[in-house]
Parts: sequence; C-alpha cells; structure tokens
Amino acid sequence: MSARTDMSMTELAGAIARGETTSLAATEACLSRIDAGNPTLNAFIRLDRAEALEAAATADAKRASGATLGPLHGVPMAHKDMYYREGRVSTCGSRIRRDFVAPKTATVLEKLDAAGAIDLGTLNMAEFAQNPTGHNREFGDAHNPWNPPFCTGGSSSGSGVAVAARMVYAALGSDTGGSIRLPASLCGVTGLKGTQTRVSRSGVMPLSFSMDNVGPLTRTARDAARFMAVTAGRDPKDPTSAREAVPDYEAALTGDVRGLRIAVPQEWFFDGADEVVVAAFETALDALKARGASITRLSAPSLNAVATCVAVVSRVEGATIHATWMRERSADYATHLSARIYGGYALPATYYVEALAHRGPLLRQFCTEAMTGFDIVATPTLRTRVPTLAETDIDADPANWHRFMAVSANTRPFNYLGLPTVSVPCGFDERRLPIGLQLAGRPFAEGRVLQVADAFQQETAWHTRVPG
Amino acid sequence: MSARTDMSMTELAGAIARGETTSLAATEACLSRIDAGNPTLNAFIRLDRAEALEAAATADAKRASGATLGPLHGVPMAHKDMYYREGRVSTCGSRIRRDFVAPKTATVLEKLDAAGAIDLGTLNMAEFAQNPTGHNREFGDAHNPWNPPFCTGGSSSGSGVAVAARMVYAALGSDTGGSIRLPASLCGVTGLKGTQTRVSRSGVMPLSFSMDNVGPLTRTARDAARFMAVTAGRDPKDPTSAREAVPDYEAALTGDVRGLRIAVPQEWFFDGADEVVVAAFETALDALKARGASITRLSAPSLNAVATCVAVVSRVEGATIHATWMRERSADYATHLSARIYGGYALPATYYVEALAHRGPLLRQFCTEAMTGFDIVATPTLRTRVPTLAETDIDADPANWHRFMAVSANTRPFNYLGLPTVSVPCGFDERRLPIGLQLAGRPFAEGRVLQVADAFQQETAWHTRVPG
Repeated sequence: MSARTDMSMTELAGAIARGETTSLAATEACLSRIDAGNPTLNAFIRLDRAEALEAAATADAKRASGATLGPLHGVPMAHKDMYYREGRVSTCGSRIRRDFVAPKTATVLEKLDAAGAIDLGTLNMAEFAQNPTGHNREFGDAHNPWNPPFCTGGSSSGSGVAVAARMVYAALGSDTGGSIRLPASLCGVTGLKGTQTRVSRSGVMPLSFSMDNVGPLTRTARDAARFMAVTAGRDPKDPTSAREAVPDYEAALTGDVRGLRIAVPQEWFFDGADEVVVAAFETALDALKARGASITRLSAPSLNAVATCVAVVSRVEGATIHATWMRERSADYATHLSARIYGGYALPATYYVEALAHRGPLLRQFCTEAMTGFDIVATPTLRTRVPTLAETDIDADPANWHRFMAVSANTRPFNYLGLPTVSVPCGFDERRLPIGLQLAGRPFAEGRVLQVADAFQQETAWHTRVPG
Repeated sequence: MSARTDMSMTELAGAIARGETTSLAATEACLSRIDAGNPTLNAFIRLDRAEALEAAATADAKRASGATLGPLHGVPMAHKDMYYREGRVSTCGSRIRRDFVAPKTATVLEKLDAAGAIDLGTLNMAEFAQNPTGHNREFGDAHNPWNPPFCTGGSSSGSGVAVAARMVYAALGSDTGGSIRLPASLCGVTGLKGTQTRVSRSGVMPLSFSMDNVGPLTRTARDAARFMAVTAGRDPKDPTSAREAVPDYEAALTGDVRGLRIAVPQEWFFDGADEVVVAAFETALDALKARGASITRLSAPSLNAVATCVAVVSRVEGATIHATWMRERSADYATHLSARIYGGYALPATYYVEALAHRGPLLRQFCTEAMTGFDIVATPTLRTRVPTLAETDIDADPANWHRFMAVSANTRPFNYLGLPTVSVPCGFDERRLPIGLQLAGRPFAEGRVLQVADAFQQETAWHTRVPG
C-alpha cells in the first residue's frame, strides 16, 4: 500500500480511516522525505525512527481491530523541540538545555497522542524561540526548502521546513511575536496562532507569559482547523488557559465568504514593503473579492502604540525567565540573544506595568478602528521578500539588525493584541520564494479566520505547491 | 423610640427588623455621636446629614409597609472616601482629587445599598491610601478616639475612628498592606481583609492591582461575616474578582473551636515587639486554648522572601498608577508620599515580574510551613504599642521613617500571600490604647477565620469597650 505525502493532514486521516492507506505507509513515506531532505534543510533535531514505525504499526492494528479512531489517527507529525515529553530531551534549540530531560508531558502533546497522531521526533528552532529567521548556532541553521541559502523564518524554523518539504503532515510551532506565522509564510505553508490563552501552555518552554501561543503549521486551513479543535481548550494544568468553549472549527469552512468585510490598515503594515509582496497581497485580495468578500482600506493609528508596548512586554518577561542562566551561563547563549536579553534588565518596572495596562484599551481601540463592521484584518505576513540567512545574520554583522527586526514587524502586533491570526501562502517572488497573507480576527474568532483562509485556498492553489 | 449606638451592626439590623428601634433613631444617634466626636477626631470628610435622615425615614417606611428587608436594612454606615458614588466627589484623601466627581458607583456600594444600608458620608483616609498611620495633610490627621495625640492607623483612618467612636455601625476600608487591619487594631475594632479578589474592586480607587482588597471595619466578627457575605462575589465589572461561591459566613460562627489548630510563627512577627503587646497576644492565645484550640509555635522562613516581594509589587504598581500626576503635579502630594512613589520608577521590570512570579511558590511554601495541619496563623497585628502622630510624622522628620514603616510590618505579608486575615481587639496597653490580634487563614477560608475571631469575642469582652 502506498502513501502520498502530497495529501493534506485531513486527507491522510480520512484515507487511513477508510483503509485506502495505512499509518505505516505514511510514516515510511515521511521517513523517506526526511532522509532525502534533512541533510540539506536541517529540520529535525531528533528522529525517533523505530518508535515512530512501531507506533504506526500499532495504529494500523488498532484500526484493523475496529476500534474507534481519533481525528488524527495514524498521521505522522513532529514538533518544535520545546514541547516536553516526559523522559525525553527537550533542547529548546539551546546549548543550555542540550541535555534537559523533560519532567512531564505537555498537555498539547497528550491531546495529539489521544487523537491518534504519530510523533516522529523533535524539530529545529531558534535558540529559546527568540529569533525570527531560523538561525541556530547550536544545532545548525534551518534552510528554506524552496532555496536553501534563504531564511526559513523563525522561531519555529524546523516546523515550517518539515511541513513545507512534506516530511510531516503537521507540526506544532509556538508564536510569541510571529514564530508560527513567519516560518509558515517563508516556507509556504499555513500557520495559525490562536487567541491568546486559547491553547494550554502546560509543559511548554516559556518565553513571554503574556504573549506565548501554541499552534500548528499545516498544509491547509482545514488541517489547521482540525488541529486547533484537537488541541485548544481549558486545561486545569494551565490556569491562564481560556474557559471559552471550543467550537467545531471545520464546520465553519463553508467556502462562502459572500458579504464578509475585510479591513486593510494602510499606514503601517506596508512601511518599507517590497513591490512583489504588495502585488501578491493585492492579487490575494482580488481572489477574496472574487468570492464575494469586500475590501476596505482604513487607518488604525493604535498600531504605533502597540508596537512600543509589544517590545517592552516580551523583553521584560524573557529577561526575567532567563535571569538565572544569564547570571551563570551567559556565554552559552548566541551573542545576539544574550545582547537582546541584557537590554531587558534595564527597563523600568513601571514601563512594563504600563505596557500591560494599555493592552485592554489598545485592543479596544484597534477593534474600534479596524474591526467595527469588519470581520477580518488582512496584511502581508512579511513586508519584504524572504531574506537570506547571510543578510540577517546579526552575530556576523550587527549592521544586519534592521533586516533582522523587520522580519517580525507585521506579526508582532497581533501577539500584544492577542487576536487569532493565520498566515497562508499567496504567491512567490521572482526568486521562487513564498509570500504570505496574514488574516486576523476578533478574540476567539478562530473559526472566522479559518473560514476566510479556507475560502482563499479553495480559490487559489498556492498551498498545493511543493518545493524541490 | 431610642437607639443604642453600643449595639453591633447585626444587633441593630435585628432590632430594626423586629421594630424595637428604627433606622431614623439609629441614624440620629449616629449623627449625635458624629457632632460630639468629629471636631476632635476628624473621621468624616463629608457628612450627608439630610440625605441620610431621608434615607432612614424611607427605610422605616419600607419596613412599615411589610416589604422584604435586606440583611443590613436601615443600618447607618459611612465609607472610606475612595468608594465612588456616581456624581459625588471622591477625594481619595488627596489634593489632586479634591474635586473629582465619580463617574460611576462602586459595585460594593451598590451591594450595600441593595442590602438596605444607609450611607452617612465619606471618611478620612491616608492620601491615596498610602500611609499606615492616619496622617493627612489635606484634610487633617485623624485622631485616635482612645487618646487623640496617638495614631489611628491607616490608611482607612476615618473608618477605624468612626466605628470605634460609635459614629457608624460599620465602614468600608481598603487593605493593600494592612490598611483595614491597622486602623482596626489601633482603634480597637474588628477589621477583615478577605482573600485577594474576594470582593469586587470596580469603582474603587486603585493603588496596587495585585494587592488591593475591599473589606469592612466593624465592631464584631459577626458583623464582618454579614458584611462580607453581602459584598463578596464575582462581579462582571471586575474581571479580577474571584468566581468562588460565597458561603454563609455567619453559619460558620458556632463558637466552637475545639480541636482547631493555631500556628504561631516565631522568628519574624515578634522582631522588636513591645512586651505589653506580646503579653496581650499570649493572653489572647490562652483564651482560645480555653475554648479548646491548640497552639503550636513554628518557623516560617518563607516570610523573609515575602517581605522583599511585597515591597517591590506595591511600589511598582503604585508608581505606575500615579505616573501622570507625578509628572504634572508632584508638588500636590505630601512630601513623604511623592518621595515614596519616586522610588518606584527606579525599580527594574524584571524585579517586578520576579516578585509576581514568586507569589504562587511562596504562598505554597508558607502554607506548607505554617498551614499544613493548621487552620489559622496568629500574630500580633502591630508589633509595638500604638505610636503617636508626632513620632511617626516623616514629613516633619525623616528619622521617623523606621517607626512609620514598622507599623505595617506584620500586616503586609498577608497582602502578598493573598490570605484572608482579620484583626480583633485583644487588650490595651498602659496608655489605654488598643492591641490587636491578627488571624490569617487559607485562601477563601474567610469563614474559618471569622469562626475563630467570633469564638474569641465570645470568650472576651475587648470588642465591647467604648472609647471616651
């Protein structure tokens, strides 16, 4: 029995459930892709080949026995190496945690296990999830599957690569300033950051309590909908997790966006944007218009304050979390990372409290400016074309700082605002590197965001392209 | 028909309900006490005489009509001048808010209104609730009803005075570092700070989001139980308010404390304590032993870290809240207050995040050290005898700083720990000034704390003494 790695996650789950293929065949196909691609792309930190094959065989036996199957039964995945599994090393992409054995299993991995997913290993990432490019000094940089000298985006670099290069059908990333949406955009896949607190963070490496999000990188919006439905929800182990009920996100994917109103803030998300990116973005808007959505250009001046606040909150919280290691092992960080964290110790406490206190009012202001009468805010995920690893390497040359920081300029505001936001592929530049469309919705409107993303994927074929 | 101002709040409510007295008689009796005592004691900032008499007459008419009565029907009260009532000035004890007209009514006032309480006016307080002594440059210092040159305790100075001097039957205070328990102790009444988030803070002047508490000063623990039952509970207008159900606190007041275990931390709460305070505290423990409770001396080293963290959190949050006024109107603060707030701008953000992050672990550690197998932690409320206003006046002489700070040394830790804590009178020093017994319980164990306080008041008569 053969398996097609060009299927989406939901297609594969259906094919396995119907007996058209097996988990073992899918897992073997993924392992072949990994063997072929990983030496160049460096997506995997750890590959649990034997365990994965055994789990796949067990999944197939379970199906053969007529047991009830979970919604991800038999689907091969792998996850960013910051999701703890009890007894397994979780490096967090760092030298400091190179040998850290996780004392417990992340709630989100328990949920994926319970839904039947197969775990192939752990994926490369930015050191402690703190760069937007995909550089990693300790485990080697991840490389863009469309063109290896180019950035993958970060911090969920391995997740973007593995899903794009068809090494797995889906992967967990995490998103504090764009770390799911950026590798999704730069690698040409779908990445969903839910509403702040939508998914439990128990058993997940923290970076910024106020802005960390757990979410999937997948091939389609439909895959993201199913993945989110499996993983979201209240978790007693994470007292910050939201109590809101989790709807059936797949039921929202009607393909029908007639009458839906999309707002496009004008003055901010396009600062310094590349022409090819703007052109692809406009073409994407035309595709949504073709399906009946309306597009309105407007102004959202609240975003200037948002950009200031987001930097204060994430730097302070990151500096606090890393305080002990920074005192005892600062030489074990990449230079750009310890430099960034150091800055966090010089910020006054009142700036931090103010930045947090502005969060509610600024969210209200942004929703008034950009979401009153509108369902979705659309922007390019990245303002520029995908940069190369060399031109964003700030350890090699600090002058690359502005290009490094520009990468996450359009994604960061939605972490401070806490809004559900997806990135979907919407074109390619002249170097054959992907361009991403970012769609944000109101709090807990993941279903609406996915509905628009799915309609876009029904109208276009960008998400079906395979690198290599 | 006459009214006795020596009744407790619950006794008066019962007497009004049974027709043995009237709200009007009680209100007139209170107004007489205010007229007699306030020129010396300075408890009231604003007295709404005509409105109170009218409200009392209306309450009596309502009773006469056979209407269902609330649990505080017709009881005269007044509250610290930081509880907003729409359209009324709320000075917060400050020059800056001397003319501030409140735009909305505090949820807790709405609840008291609904329970039938009569509001006589607003009470003196420390400027912006930020001193533990009762000094106030703008509205004049409050004076201890037992001996006017002595401190009332703060910041709810007027609340302590008005309840002790029988000007009202109960009063709202607020407690961020001891501001309910200190005036209760220094004025010889009962003061209850609930579990952090137990009472809504909507419509209340903020000082420290993480440690502000709303609560009553009353004559008895039974009064505090009824007052807390009326005011506690989830409030949609205060998203930080606790969702835990509010039990019938009065039902817990059985008088029976046989088998109850009381812990007395040894190394910390008695540093620099006056002998007369320790003697009164020990006599109080004997009274509880006489009713069947057991006393265990133990060590709680977590309190050293607690004392550090509490200072960081409250100073940072206070400095943030006052940032705009401090830039624009710093000369309008008392010198000691602006000096204290200024210090808050120099604290690093990471200290603040660490101080907050330690809160859960330190609460766990304290409960392990002092509450595993114990129901209650007992300490003196104030380590020393009541100081004079002169010897704690730090605007007159900064050398008084250590005496000023010592006032809240024993109360502050329970704000950081967030535990329900009550102060009840337990004796007098040789200058005829009250001494307070502080009792703390586990989170949301207000009922247990009040049960012990009530049993103590069944065994002793300190709470029945009237100044003057």
